[in-house]
Amino acid sequence: MLARVSIIMGSTSDLPVMEKAAKVLDEFQIPFEINALSAHRTPGEVEAFATQARKKGIEVIIAAAGMAAHLPGVIASMTTLPVIGVPISASLEGMDALLAIVQMPPGIPVATVGINAAQNAALLAVQILAGSDQNLQTKLATYKENLKDKIVLANEELKKVKFEYKTN
Amino acid sequence: MLARVSIIMGSTSDLPVMEKAAKVLDEFQIPFEINALSAHRTPGEVEAFATQARKKGIEVIIAAAGMAAHLPGVIASMTTLPVIGVPISASLEGMDALLAIVQMPPGIPVATVGINAAQNAALLAVQILAGSDQNLQTKLATYKENLKDKIVLANEELKKVKFEYKTN
Amino acid sequence: MLARVSIIMGSTSDLPVMEKAAKVLDEFQIPFEINALSAHRTPGEVEAFATQARKKGIEVIIAAAGMAAHLPGVIASMTTLPVIGVPISASLEGMDALLAIVQMPPGIPVATVGINAAQNAALLAVQILAGSDQNLQTKLATYKENLKDKIVLANEELKKVKFEYKTN
Amino acid sequence: MLARVSIIMGSTSDLPVMEKAAKVLDEFQIPFEINALSAHRTPGEVEAFATQARKKGIEVIIAAAGMAAHLPGVIASMTTLPVIGVPISASLEGMDALLAIVQMPPGIPVATVGINAAQNAALLAVQILAGSDQNLQTKLATYKENLKDKIVLANEELKKVKFEYKTN
Amino acid sequence: MLARVSIIMGSTSDLPVMEKAAKVLDEFQIPFEINALSAHRTPGEVEAFATQARKKGIEVIIAAAGMAAHLPGVIASMTTLPVIGVPISASLEGMDALLAIVQMPPGIPVATVGINAAQNAALLAVQILAGSDQNLQTKLATYKENLKDKIVLANEELKKVKFEYKTN
Amino acid sequence: MLARVSIIMGSTSDLPVMEKAAKVLDEFQIPFEINALSAHRTPGEVEAFATQARKKGIEVIIAAAGMAAHLPGVIASMTTLPVIGVPISASLEGMDALLAIVQMPPGIPVATVGINAAQNAALLAVQILAGSDQNLQTKLATYKENLKDKIVLANEELKKVKFEYKTN
Amino acid sequence: MLARVSIIMGSTSDLPVMEKAAKVLDEFQIPFEINALSAHRTPGEVEAFATQARKKGIEVIIAAAGMAAHLPGVIASMTTLPVIGVPISASLEGMDALLAIVQMPPGIPVATVGINAAQNAALLAVQILAGSDQNLQTKLATYKENLKDKIVLANEELKKVKFEYKTN
Amino acid sequence: MLARVSIIMGSTSDLPVMEKAAKVLDEFQIPFEINALSAHRTPGEVEAFATQARKKGIEVIIAAAGMAAHLPGVIASMTTLPVIGVPISASLEGMDALLAIVQMPPGIPVATVGINAAQNAALLAVQILAGSDQNLQTKLATYKENLKDKIVLANEELKKVKFEYKTN
Repeated sequence: MLARVSIIMGSTSDLPVMEKAAKVLDEFQIPFEINALSAHRTPGEVEAFATQARKKGIEVIIAAAGMAAHLPGVIASMTTLPVIGVPISASLEGMDALLAIVQMPPGIPVATVGINAAQNAALLAVQILAGSDQNLQTKLATYKENLKDKIVLANEELKKVKFEYKTN
Repeated sequence: MLARVSIIMGSTSDLPVMEKAAKVLDEFQIPFEINALSAHRTPGEVEAFATQARKKGIEVIIAAAGMAAHLPGVIASMTTLPVIGVPISASLEGMDALLAIVQMPPGIPVATVGINAAQNAALLAVQILAGSDQNLQTKLATYKENLKDKIVLANEELKKVKFEYKTN
Repeated sequence: MLARVSIIMGSTSDLPVMEKAAKVLDEFQIPFEINALSAHRTPGEVEAFATQARKKGIEVIIAAAGMAAHLPGVIASMTTLPVIGVPISASLEGMDALLAIVQMPPGIPVATVGINAAQNAALLAVQILAGSDQNLQTKLATYKENLKDKIVLANEELKKVKFEYKTN
Repeated sequence: MLARVSIIMGSTSDLPVMEKAAKVLDEFQIPFEINALSAHRTPGEVEAFATQARKKGIEVIIAAAGMAAHLPGVIASMTTLPVIGVPISASLEGMDALLAIVQMPPGIPVATVGINAAQNAALLAVQILAGSDQNLQTKLATYKENLKDKIVLANEELKKVKFEYKTN
Repeated sequence: MLARVSIIMGSTSDLPVMEKAAKVLDEFQIPFEINALSAHRTPGEVEAFATQARKKGIEVIIAAAGMAAHLPGVIASMTTLPVIGVPISASLEGMDALLAIVQMPPGIPVATVGINAAQNAALLAVQILAGSDQNLQTKLATYKENLKDKIVLANEELKKVKFEYKTN
Repeated sequence: MLARVSIIMGSTSDLPVMEKAAKVLDEFQIPFEINALSAHRTPGEVEAFATQARKKGIEVIIAAAGMAAHLPGVIASMTTLPVIGVPISASLEGMDALLAIVQMPPGIPVATVGINAAQNAALLAVQILAGSDQNLQTKLATYKENLKDKIVLANEELKKVKFEYKTN
Repeated sequence: MLARVSIIMGSTSDLPVMEKAAKVLDEFQIPFEINALSAHRTPGEVEAFATQARKKGIEVIIAAAGMAAHLPGVIASMTTLPVIGVPISASLEGMDALLAIVQMPPGIPVATVGINAAQNAALLAVQILAGSDQNLQTKLATYKENLKDKIVLANEELKKVKFEYKTN
Repeated sequence: MLARVSIIMGSTSDLPVMEKAAKVLDEFQIPFEINALSAHRTPGEVEAFATQARKKGIEVIIAAAGMAAHLPGVIASMTTLPVIGVPISASLEGMDALLAIVQMPPGIPVATVGINAAQNAALLAVQILAGSDQNLQTKLATYKENLKDKIVLANEELKKVKFEYKTN
């Protein structure tokens, strides 16, 4: 089955963070691919990927990078597909990567999510794909409902815990 | 014609920045609406908007806010539509707004663009809408080509300018 | 006995920090409740809580959150009770949470305390409740005196320690 | 009529910012006083003020300062009244003042509002005073309603404006 | 005469800053070229430039960019020539550009100078070219001597000024 | 009369800030000298100054610099006189200069004052000189008293102003 | 023997850092005292200390504090003795303490050293005391020479180490 | 064989970081030396080194320092050789060192690389030396190719890993 989302990492050291994106896409049964491509070390491969992605059937690109994180912006400059950028915390707590991804010049947007926020990157990809897909919209609504249920459950646990304080 | 994109501002003082988003959408002939809704001052209106947006035909939401910029995240928590966040520089050069928009918790992504980057927010919206719209894809390719042409033209102007330095 | 203070956390992972608030309230024998409610994952519950808090007898709300910490501000937008915000250090050393809580727009204040400063949040709640409660004012004065006594005691310990340096 | 709120500024140069606090208190018909007292230049006067404030009938203190903004914390160390701190932007965009006010050690809270947020400081004072004052609670609800009305009105203005973009 | 140094700007709006680099190179009679090439808007042109620069006789590249400043790093990824990066202050006082230029991953260095420091970029280029050029080494020594003379002269002016204070 | 304090600036552009130091020293009738010496452009002169300062009768050195502000630390490395560092705001609001002055390694302290705080640098110099000078101690006490008087006076002005708000 | 330097800590948790100051003073055989006094928890004791320090024979005060570090500034406001401030890294890597100590308003300087730089604080105190003490001046010169010797020795060790790399 | 590159560290504690520079130079078979010299503790040795480096055959200097990192700039002020600065993360995550190295005043450039980026410092030195050395140019091209090969290999490993996710 053809990948609809492509996850690109600047380095395989980003894999522990980016696995969370893969898991979300898998959960939504969206076919995806993962590749390691470096804006700086494999510029030719990045260009080949970016310029052919749409033709290959890719609909959304998720690109993660740390430090002077150019990968999402460089890909965005070579495609008109939506590119989601994930700043990886490799130095300066990820602030360098955040600014290097989000502060793109006029004309070349990157849809930036939080530092190390691979899960949110994947959810954003699903939201984009859901535009014309009623089934995905339903799954997203269910996912949101589950988020709520977890908090509600946690709250009920909490109600038991708190009585311990009252017995002073 | 029904709006496909909804631009929401936390305050009408954000209008001079957000007009650039409107102009881009207009240029791509995408019907849109602009509204001022405050996460803090009109929470009920925000909720009404967010929960009904998809039914009204909205496909992408662009939300702009400054300072403790909650609007994009609050809207994102109430819809499964993609929400694009624009941090407005109203204090601390926009760093407070950037962090308050991009650092969303797992489960609720906001597609954040740069500080005051209204033009990029609109382009990102167009890229999302273009997923199933060959016509928009072509327009985006042309837009990108024009960006390039401006730089190429600027470069030619520059080549003339630079000779002034050589005559020392 | 009806809770006078409500402690709300954005996530149960905030509990180790927020327990300090519970302990202080317990020490002052002020009835309180603790709940986990997420501005983004359970917006409906947050609204229900915030709009009914005063009627239920709550006089002060303490709301803690990390990252793009919207919970205190969102609650403040839906009640006229004083809301005390506690930034939780979950990323960027808590600077993102601090700015997302303290930089509220005109009209919707959040009484912000330091990063992870749950103990101070509870003390501030006691100070607010003490306005019309002579008994609490006396307890606060005693608490302050105890803070001083600890330092005075520590200082006396220190005086013994320092003589070790003098014998060079 | 006895002042219930005391506004203290570290310097008269803070007056243009702090006037907004005075205006809000006046609007709510809460008697207040304004004084300039410097933690560093008039420490004796600060001590005299802080230790006697409650006896004089003061119920809430609003203290504003810039740079190494010690005034709110120093006052808070000498009273059990709630102290609201307003960081003034006099250098480093107010970040120094914000940190010097909000990051208080355990035991001595300062209820910090945003940088230059004098209006919110006053509203927070009103919320604290409203605890046992049904009349003030009603006024606060009305104030909140007015905030909403202004946004709603602004939005209606906006709806007219936006049509200008559509005619491309 | 063939250019030995190539000055590349991300945008012609960087010209007022980068003119200082041109003036320094002119002063040292080093042939140079100036071009505007955007990493994001003209990626193909950037690649063509970077891969052919050495063959054309270029020995050092000076690349300036603001915001998410990818240009210097992208060029560095496509050549083994030394690339000097100049962060332009277009937002966040240039801190975003500084981090996006200097924090390059292992393997692809960019020789970064200060924010807007076009003059220093050019001097660094001269120092690199001077490696095997005794004439340039002599000129650099003279330039350094002149820097000193200006300070010495300024100091003599200052000695006259200061007597005005003594007459109290 | 021999100078007891030496004011050194990295650049004559720092004079408008550093004049405030000269005025304070003049007010305390302390003989001083002002010189412009650059750690980077006149390292030999800096060394000559620093190594001979004590012999010439200098007792305290005030050194001001902006950006990568090395001057105070470089002087401190070459003398055992107390060196007071004044960070000048020439970029990044002076944060670069502050860190480059205050974060000295173990063994070489610089007594750092606030950004652009030339007046405080001079007062600190007077405090150091006053160690064995009863006359200067008395003058410092008077100076402190005057600071207080200005605030007290300002406060009295303020008391008149504030009544304007009461008449709502 | 009467203490000439007084080391004051905001909390005994600062002792592991401040011991380094004690050791330096001991090494220079300068009598000193160490006390824990909190600007916020024992304001009365701080005032008693600061106003009587000079009479007791104290010539220099070293004050250390973390977070919203008011102690050095508060002491400086109550004495004309030189006050050396040591920012303690207790949160935000010590940046909050640094700004809260160094950014004092005009009239009340604090001689700030680096974050956790207790050793430099003590050396600065010695430099101040050395003003009229030829013996201390000689000791300081020897101390400086020793710093150099350690580096020279380290360098010789390094020369042996580096040969390991050469054998490729 | 005479050293062509000189690696200077402010402290031997920087050795674990700077070894990476040594290894790269060794890999390129470029003779080098490593020394520990402190701008603040051995200013005389720094001057002797900097003023004689070119005569000794040194062509590029790599200088590493942390905190108020003056070493690279001080060396650059005393030579016309290219000086590469490596900010060491010893406090504030290396941000203090980065600013103290990169923000040099006009006239004295330091070619700054990323925080702790010793490997990139050495590669930049090789790029500078390669200007007139065809052999080094070839080695650099091979080195770059190897960077690419590692990523390509990593990517192939990744392709196997990812299939694990698909089997949901």
